Amino acid sequence: MTDREYLARAFVLANQGRYTTDPNPRVGCVLVKHGRVIGEGYHQLAGGPHAEAQALNQVEGSAEGATAYVTLEPCSYHGRTPSCAAALIEAGVVRVVAAAEDPHPRNRGAGFELLEAAGIEVVRALDPDAAEALNPGHLKCHAHNRPYVRLKLAATMDGLTALPNGESQWITSAAARLDVQRLRAQSSAIVTGANTVLDDDPELTVRDPGIDPRFSSLILSRARPVYVLDSNARTTSEARVYANPQARQVCGVHARSDHPQSMRINTNPAGRIDLSEFFAKLAAEGVLEVLVESGAVLAGAVLEAGLVDELVLYMAPKLMGVGRPLLQLPELDKMSDLKNFEITEHRRIGPDLKLVLKPRA
Amino acid sequence: MTDREYLARAFVLANQGRYTTDPNPRVGCVLVKHGRVIGEGYHQLAGGPHAEAQALNQVEGSAEGATAYVTLEPCSYHGRTPSCAAALIEAGVVRVVAAAEDPHPRNRGAGFELLEAAGIEVVRALDPDAAEALNPGHLKCHAHNRPYVRLKLAATMDGLTALPNGESQWITSAAARLDVQRLRAQSSAIVTGANTVLDDDPELTVRDPGIDPRFSSLILSRARPVYVLDSNARTTSEARVYANPQARQVCGVHARSDHPQSMRINTNPAGRIDLSEFFAKLAAEGVLEVLVESGAVLAGAVLEAGLVDELVLYMAPKLMGVGRPLLQLPELDKMSDLKNFEITEHRRIGPDLKLVLKPRA
Repeated sequence: MTDREYLARAFVLANQGRYTTDPNPRVGCVLVKHGRVIGEGYHQLAGGPHAEAQALNQVEGSAEGATAYVTLEPCSYHGRTPSCAAALIEAGVVRVVAAAEDPHPRNRGAGFELLEAAGIEVVRALDPDAAEALNPGHLKCHAHNRPYVRLKLAATMDGLTALPNGESQWITSAAARLDVQRLRAQSSAIVTGANTVLDDDPELTVRDPGIDPRFSSLILSRARPVYVLDSNARTTSEARVYANPQARQVCGVHARSDHPQSMRINTNPAGRIDLSEFFAKLAAEGVLEVLVESGAVLAGAVLEAGLVDELVLYMAPKLMGVGRPLLQLPELDKMSDLKNFEITEHRRIGPDLKLVLKPRA
Repeated sequence: MTDREYLARAFVLANQGRYTTDPNPRVGCVLVKHGRVIGEGYHQLAGGPHAEAQALNQVEGSAEGATAYVTLEPCSYHGRTPSCAAALIEAGVVRVVAAAEDPHPRNRGAGFELLEAAGIEVVRALDPDAAEALNPGHLKCHAHNRPYVRLKLAATMDGLTALPNGESQWITSAAARLDVQRLRAQSSAIVTGANTVLDDDPELTVRDPGIDPRFSSLILSRARPVYVLDSNARTTSEARVYANPQARQVCGVHARSDHPQSMRINTNPAGRIDLSEFFAKLAAEGVLEVLVESGAVLAGAVLEAGLVDELVLYMAPKLMGVGRPLLQLPELDKMSDLKNFEITEHRRIGPDLKLVLKPRA
C-alpha cells in the first residue's frame, strides 16, 4: 500500500465522525509498522479521545518505528485531551504523513514542528483538498472568520417551491428529506428566516434515526442550535423551532424582543440583519458549518452577499408552471452578470435529483 | 456469445443510422454461422438497402444455416427495396432473432409469418424496450397516430430562460448547444411557435458538422421541416426559419396567410392551434419524431395537452432570480395535481446538466 492509500483509509475512518465531532474537526489516523496496520482510530466526540490516541490505544506491543497517517496535523497543545504530537513522539513513531496543516491558531504548523524537533520525518500536506472537504467549516472559520455556509433549496424542475396558495408540502420525496436530515446532522447550526418560521412553523430538528444507524443515539443526542433571522422580532416563543433550547432569535439592535435567548445584530439600511456581522459572530461562537434552510428572500440575500460556499438543490421531477420562486435576487440587465456555479455533484435520490453547486469567481 | 449479445451488436449497428434513416426506422442486422459473425449491416438512407440486405451482401460463401439477429421484424413486402423476410429465406437462414415486431400496418407480424412458413425458427420479441427506444417515433406513429414528441427546454437552475429585458443568449454552453444539434438531427421535424420566430428569429437548422463526423455530409444534406405554429399568421416570409424550403406556417383555418406552404388546422375556443389535430396530421405526413423548441406558451400548451413523450432539459449552473419562466401552465390549487415525471437520464454536458424526463401516469 502507498502513502496515499493508507491516508485514504484514514479519511474513511475520519468520516465516521461526520455527525458527531462538532465543534471539533473530523480526524482519522492509521498506524502502519513493517507494512502492517497496527492501529486505527477516529475522533468521535468533543472531549473524547483524538484519532491518534484511539489508534495508539489499539496497538498490541509497541508502535516504535511506525508511520502515522493522519487527515489533519496532530495537535501540539494540551487541551481537553493531551497533545497528539507528544503522544506520537512518546510512542516512538518515526514518520508522520498528514493530509493538511491544521489552520487552528493554536496549531498552524506547531504540531509538525514538535514532531520534527523530535527527529520524526513529516509529510505535511499530502492531500489538502480532501482535508478541506472533510472539515470545510474548520478551515473556513480559521481562514475567513466565518462558518462554511451550505444553502439548501428544494424545487420543481421549473424552479418553483410552492403553489400560489402557499402549499409546499411535499415537493420532494421522503428519500430527499432524509438526505436533508443528514445535512442538518452534520451541521453545527441551522439558519432560517422569520418568514419560514411564520409560514411553515418547522421544527428544524435532527430526528431521523436512519442517518447513520451505527451512531443513531449519538447523532440524535446533540441538539443543533437554530438561528432565526428576524430583524423585527416578529416570531414568538410559541413557534415550534423555539422548543429547541438552543434556538436563538437573531434580531436588530433596536427590535423589541422578549425571547430569552435573542442575539443582537446591526441591520443594514433596508432594515435587514447584517449578514456579515451575523456570520462572523457565529464563527466567534465556534459555529463551523451552517445549513441555511429558508425561503426565497433570505436565500437570495445570503447568495447576493457572496456568503454561500455550497448550494444543495433538490429537484423534484415535477412541473408547476405558476408558483413561488426559489430565490429573490435583484433584477439584472446583462446575462454576463448572472451568478455562476460549478456542478460538483449530481445524483438521484429516490425519484428526485440532488445537485451540489459551488460558486465560481 | 449469447443471443442477447449478438442482438446488442445489432443495436450498435442500427444506431449508426440515427441521423439519416428518416422516415424509415433505424435497423441493424448481424448474421452468425457456426459461432462466427459472417455479415453485418444497418439501414442508412430511405431508398437504400435495408440492414438485412447489407448484412447478406457481406457474406463470403453461403449464409445457409445462419442465424439472423435483427432489431426489428424483417419486412414482408416489396417496397422501394425487396422484402427482407424473402431475402433471408432465400439465403438459407434457419433462425431469426428479432428485438420486436414491426408496428407498421403492412408488416405487423407478417414478416415473422413468412419466415415461419418457410420453416425458420423465429424469436419474436427479445428486447422490445430497446427497439422502442431506438425508434420511438416509428412505434408512436403506428400505435397512437401521432409522432413521438420531444420537448427541449433550457434554463437556469432556478428555471428561468431570459432576463426581464428579454436577453437570453446564451444561457447554456456551446457543448449543450451542440447536443441540441444532435436532437434536431435525429428528428423528422422541428416544431416552434410564432412568438419564438418573432422574438428570436432563429434558423432552427442542422448545421454543426460535429454531430457524428462519420456521417457529416449525409446528416447535413437532409433538411428537417420546421413547423411554425402561428394561428393568426403573424410571421412573415422574411423570418429566417422560412429560408428552409421545407418550413411550414401552421395557421388557423380562417387566418389570412400568404405563405406559399401554409398548413391549415382548426383552432380551439382560445383561438389556438388544435394540437391533437396538428400532430395527427404530422403523423399522416410521415413525420415520426418531433423536436419542439419553443417559448413558455407553446411548451406549456403541448405539456398541458399530454402530448409530450420526453422532456429534455438543459440546465446552466447559473441563478437569475428574476426573469422569464420556462413554462406557462394553468395555476393549480393542489400539490397532487402537479405534472409528474421520471428522470431517465442526468449527465454533465460541458458545465451544464442535461436531464431527460418522461411523463408518469
